[in-house]
Amino acid sequence: MKIGLDAMGGDFAPVEACKGIRAYLQAATTPANAVVYAIGIAEQLEPLLADLPKDRCIIVNATEVVGMHEHPTKALKEKPNSSISIGFGMLAKGMIDAFISAGNTGMMLVGAAMIIKPLPGVMRPSIPSLVPFQNGSIGLLLDVGINADCKPEMLDQFAVLGSNYAEHILKVKSPRVGLLNIGEEEGKGNLLAKSTYPVLQANTHINFIGNIEGRDVLANKADVIICDGFTGNIILKLCESIYDIFHTQRHIQDEYLNHFNYETYGGTPVLGINKTVIVGHGISNENAFNKMLDQAYTIASSDMIAQLNGKFATVAE
Amino acid sequence: MKIGLDAMGGDFAPVEACKGIRAYLQAATTPANAVVYAIGIAEQLEPLLADLPKDRCIIVNATEVVGMHEHPTKALKEKPNSSISIGFGMLAKGMIDAFISAGNTGMMLVGAAMIIKPLPGVMRPSIPSLVPFQNGSIGLLLDVGINADCKPEMLDQFAVLGSNYAEHILKVKSPRVGLLNIGEEEGKGNLLAKSTYPVLQANTHINFIGNIEGRDVLANKADVIICDGFTGNIILKLCESIYDIFHTQRHIQDEYLNHFNYETYGGTPVLGINKTVIVGHGISNENAFNKMLDQAYTIASSDMIAQLNGKFATVAE
Repeated sequence: MKIGLDAMGGDFAPVEACKGIRAYLQAATTPANAVVYAIGIAEQLEPLLADLPKDRCIIVNATEVVGMHEHPTKALKEKPNSSISIGFGMLAKGMIDAFISAGNTGMMLVGAAMIIKPLPGVMRPSIPSLVPFQNGSIGLLLDVGINADCKPEMLDQFAVLGSNYAEHILKVKSPRVGLLNIGEEEGKGNLLAKSTYPVLQANTHINFIGNIEGRDVLANKADVIICDGFTGNIILKLCESIYDIFHTQRHIQDEYLNHFNYETYGGTPVLGINKTVIVGHGISNENAFNKMLDQAYTIASSDMIAQLNGKFATVAE
Repeated sequence: MKIGLDAMGGDFAPVEACKGIRAYLQAATTPANAVVYAIGIAEQLEPLLADLPKDRCIIVNATEVVGMHEHPTKALKEKPNSSISIGFGMLAKGMIDAFISAGNTGMMLVGAAMIIKPLPGVMRPSIPSLVPFQNGSIGLLLDVGINADCKPEMLDQFAVLGSNYAEHILKVKSPRVGLLNIGEEEGKGNLLAKSTYPVLQANTHINFIGNIEGRDVLANKADVIICDGFTGNIILKLCESIYDIFHTQRHIQDEYLNHFNYETYGGTPVLGINKTVIVGHGISNENAFNKMLDQAYTIASSDMIAQLNGKFATVAE
């Protein structure tokens, strides 16, 4: 299992990225066949990774660096030797089985859609956020930002993508799908929610349980919570701020509050594409990189993507 | 100053409503000219309010009761002797200066729009939620639920209504208006946010500071945070669940967390109509009713509604 990691991506790269690689490869639970390809400026990475076995950690030299705020499509075209461009190239060619970066998020998403390509029939890839439930289990909220404006058919596909992730990665049997809405009854909501409800209800590939409200997001009422990327992104960032305020600033020690820490989950997989791509938080540290490597291994070695075959109606050419 | 209160509205009425009236009238800070009209089934209210001075607490008999889940428009038509119908009738006729209810929310909103009427030029009334900022100050998020689907012109009016409330009730000078969005730069967001940005920017009645993200909602970046009612309602209910989880269930004692308790603020004013109407939470208790009476007095005795004159373009008839 070959996992590519952009060692230059993120605010604390390459140091934290390299620490994460070390932590991952030295962990007793890491499978013996896991090999990490650290992609970045070789002369910076070599001293940081010198002590790791050469057959488990392979440095791939990338001479260009992409800033966090560079234009995604432009950077992808004009910097073919950046760590992100090289990573996607290797992934597309099958030289690696998964690719991780905490760098320029826009470039990661454009790369995932343009170089790796959506699965047949998928209208738009989606990124979910893992949601820590009060009872300790974990659910999924999607979309959280790629798709600001959605159609019912897109939300319907997110429901399939989210259910598939919940089933194969979170190991939830017949995941409950809830439509995020402002009322419980059918017929409530904005135009999008009202027209999505019957579409989800008619979808035989998912276990749709109806609407869920803002107060139910953390309550383990649905394993997969579906919304447009505008709403999802605002929820995600609000929850991140809740952790920041109560844990980091107000020093509250609470086990459940700790589950709001992004580090706990590593990164965000891009769903609906035919390879494993993980997008990390810009502030990713050793622990987050370690978790992302673990997450990438789990996804790439799972049946998740294969099981999506035939789940989306494809338009005859 | 005559304040009408639906003493039958809310899960714990009439007992908690009457306790709230007592607490309010007995508080040293309550102005001497405040008179409460307790509207409800007189024989239930009399024993609960017997000890209060008859010139400060006047019982208005209402023989019908509206359930929390009755159809708003139907109940308003078919139950003219319910406490909500009587309250709106008294408010419309100028017999009271403000009306408060923690009963059927839909009926309160329909009554506010149908019986009290929007101010000239106002497309849709709006309900805001008070937002506790980390620094102890308070802001406003609107809309939080009446208007699930919005146009840029509606969000623009919410900005004026919210600024007006912030200025005259929260006493914020030149309140900063932020557009809730998924990125800071102009041009980010869904179609609604993208087309609302230039409209807010062109509005000379407000102090527009640009986009703010989900992580900034609690950060005191904007005094008035503008969004559609779908997004706002989900944020409001999510924040209520945060309080419920961490305070009520996990027993975390934290001063800032306590600010998330709905009781702290009383109720929600209906903005954009020509009278003072406060909608209470269904679970309102003594403290919440007390706060709502105080809030109603403040709003009704302020310049808030008068200052809105001329702020909205009216279509020539």
